[in-house]
Amino acid sequence: MDESRLTSTSMNEVLERFKAGKPAALSRGISIVENQRDGFEAFLHAAMQTKLQGRRIGLTGPPGAGKSSLVALLTEFYISQGERVGVLAVDPTSPQTGGALLGDRIRMNDIAIDENVFIRSMATRGSLGGLAATTKEILDLMDCFGFDRLLAETVGVGQTEFEIARAVDTVVVVLVPESGDSIQAMKAGLMEIADIFIVNKADRPGSDKLVKEVRQAIHLRSGHNFKGFAGHHGPVIEVHDTAELNELDDELGWEPLVLKTNALTGEGIQELTQAIESHEEWIQGSGELQKRRKLRTEVRIREVMHRELVNRSIASRTVNKILTKRVEAVLSGHATPYSVAMELVDQFLEKDQ
Amino acid sequence: MDESRLTSTSMNEVLERFKAGKPAALSRGISIVENQRDGFEAFLHAAMQTKLQGRRIGLTGPPGAGKSSLVALLTEFYISQGERVGVLAVDPTSPQTGGALLGDRIRMNDIAIDENVFIRSMATRGSLGGLAATTKEILDLMDCFGFDRLLAETVGVGQTEFEIARAVDTVVVVLVPESGDSIQAMKAGLMEIADIFIVNKADRPGSDKLVKEVRQAIHLRSGHNFKGFAGHHGPVIEVHDTAELNELDDELGWEPLVLKTNALTGEGIQELTQAIESHEEWIQGSGELQKRRKLRTEVRIREVMHRELVNRSIASRTVNKILTKRVEAVLSGHATPYSVAMELVDQFLEKDQ
Repeated sequence: MDESRLTSTSMNEVLERFKAGKPAALSRGISIVENQRDGFEAFLHAAMQTKLQGRRIGLTGPPGAGKSSLVALLTEFYISQGERVGVLAVDPTSPQTGGALLGDRIRMNDIAIDENVFIRSMATRGSLGGLAATTKEILDLMDCFGFDRLLAETVGVGQTEFEIARAVDTVVVVLVPESGDSIQAMKAGLMEIADIFIVNKADRPGSDKLVKEVRQAIHLRSGHNFKGFAGHHGPVIEVHDTAELNELDDELGWEPLVLKTNALTGEGIQELTQAIESHEEWIQGSGELQKRRKLRTEVRIREVMHRELVNRSIASRTVNKILTKRVEAVLSGHATPYSVAMELVDQFLEKDQ
Repeated sequence: MDESRLTSTSMNEVLERFKAGKPAALSRGISIVENQRDGFEAFLHAAMQTKLQGRRIGLTGPPGAGKSSLVALLTEFYISQGERVGVLAVDPTSPQTGGALLGDRIRMNDIAIDENVFIRSMATRGSLGGLAATTKEILDLMDCFGFDRLLAETVGVGQTEFEIARAVDTVVVVLVPESGDSIQAMKAGLMEIADIFIVNKADRPGSDKLVKEVRQAIHLRSGHNFKGFAGHHGPVIEVHDTAELNELDDELGWEPLVLKTNALTGEGIQELTQAIESHEEWIQGSGELQKRRKLRTEVRIREVMHRELVNRSIASRTVNKILTKRVEAVLSGHATPYSVAMELVDQFLEKDQ
């Protein structure tokens, strides 16, 4: 079916089948949201009549760090635990056609036939704005479809991943030894969002050095109070006793864990799942999860409100009439975008309802 | 002086000195805009009481393509022609400290002491949203300071550069032979914004192949009508007779030029400046420049208006009171961000002025 001719009747059909738990309807629903089809917000509203409680893990890092392979391994692990897993992969550096992603997806395709797994890629290079908001809406949609676990994979090259990080419970930042320079450039921002650092492709030269550098950066940021705790770490942290870690965390907050993995051999994956569990226990026990969910709900509401305000101003005949008149005044230097914008806002708020 | 304690009095001082043409005041003004200091829009409004008529050239492309070197060479050329040149370099992949840029800037520093040149870098990795809008405001500010020519350099890795491209008259896309894959990924979007393609580092293997590929992509996009014109191109286009090109352009629109350069030897730079001139003549003669300026003025007004609407809604006590109440309802599944947002918009537009 041609989605450009999607009617509200067929949207209702999608909704019914979505609520009945049909994966094809989830797929269609995501397309509705991704393309911001007429009525997509009403669709989301109708779909979201439920508590969002999927456990959300985000993986971010530079292109080629092996995020997709790690996501595939994590997915395999969680379905082996009887969980239903939804995967969303966002690559803002790829064109809509998404050719670049296909190679990475081979392993993913092996597990994609499992009925407990749902995988969606968004390759959205060149789409103007709104990527982060759309991604969060798709995560919400996947969440209320009823997955136990949501894995969000984002390429960390711009700014989008920082926003998406705020839409998950646990942020895993994936680094590789050879991407030294880009890591340097990314570090400042990544330190703020990472709950767990992974040095993937750990068999390659420089991985121990990178682990050490990341730990130093963490401790530098944490300050002197953390030095005792930092000494507790071995060259690769071993998370055998999560209770012990949690005790420290409750006192100290969460200090990002640093682990080595090799997605090709599966080395370190068990430790990664343990680290994720450890972080989940901490955010639940400390009240941090509740805090994050509340904050991201507020952010979601505000984003929708802002989009609606903007859309109504775009549709406003009063606004458009004045705008058309005033453009020439700005071009000739007799007005500025600021004086015209303030006039438009005042008119819009007073007279245009 | 500590800018965090910038008062409106000192902002007025900056403004006076800005209008008197002091580069230090431009620098301070840019910081005011970049940090969105209280009153920055009033500052921009007061600064912009003039027609914007600087000729604007944007350079974009992948990291390491040699954009900075090309900008330095172009700057040298334009000041040798007696022009005053403003340069704005935006790298959304670098942290605020901007260490990564310093290496590239050495050549730039050689010309930075010329009194007819002003250079500003923004390394803004991790800044949340608004980068494109801020960049455009800084370009406007530099424009009304009175430069004959504005050069905007943006790293093409995300989406920001597409928006910034719309803030200039002539878009130069810089490619290098070795970045084949990323170019493939970028092509779709770049085709839409490029007025001139540069294959830099033309001494490296693969440069002729890349020139050929880019031309094929252009012709594929232009369709059959352009075949005759395409045949006019040699392996490297020679722009000796701009009138001839313009005649074709008036009939056919503008077909992006493809040139080879070597920023290290200066090879191809003269051809680049001719291509830029040729494009400028075309946009002026064809009415395209007027169209672009009108469109970007409209976009600027709308951006300011949207920001103001959002800011007023954030400051609204009515909105915040309802929001605080309703978050719990969303968390428990009794409301959605969509129902709450619509309620907030209605309240804001009706009662909150």
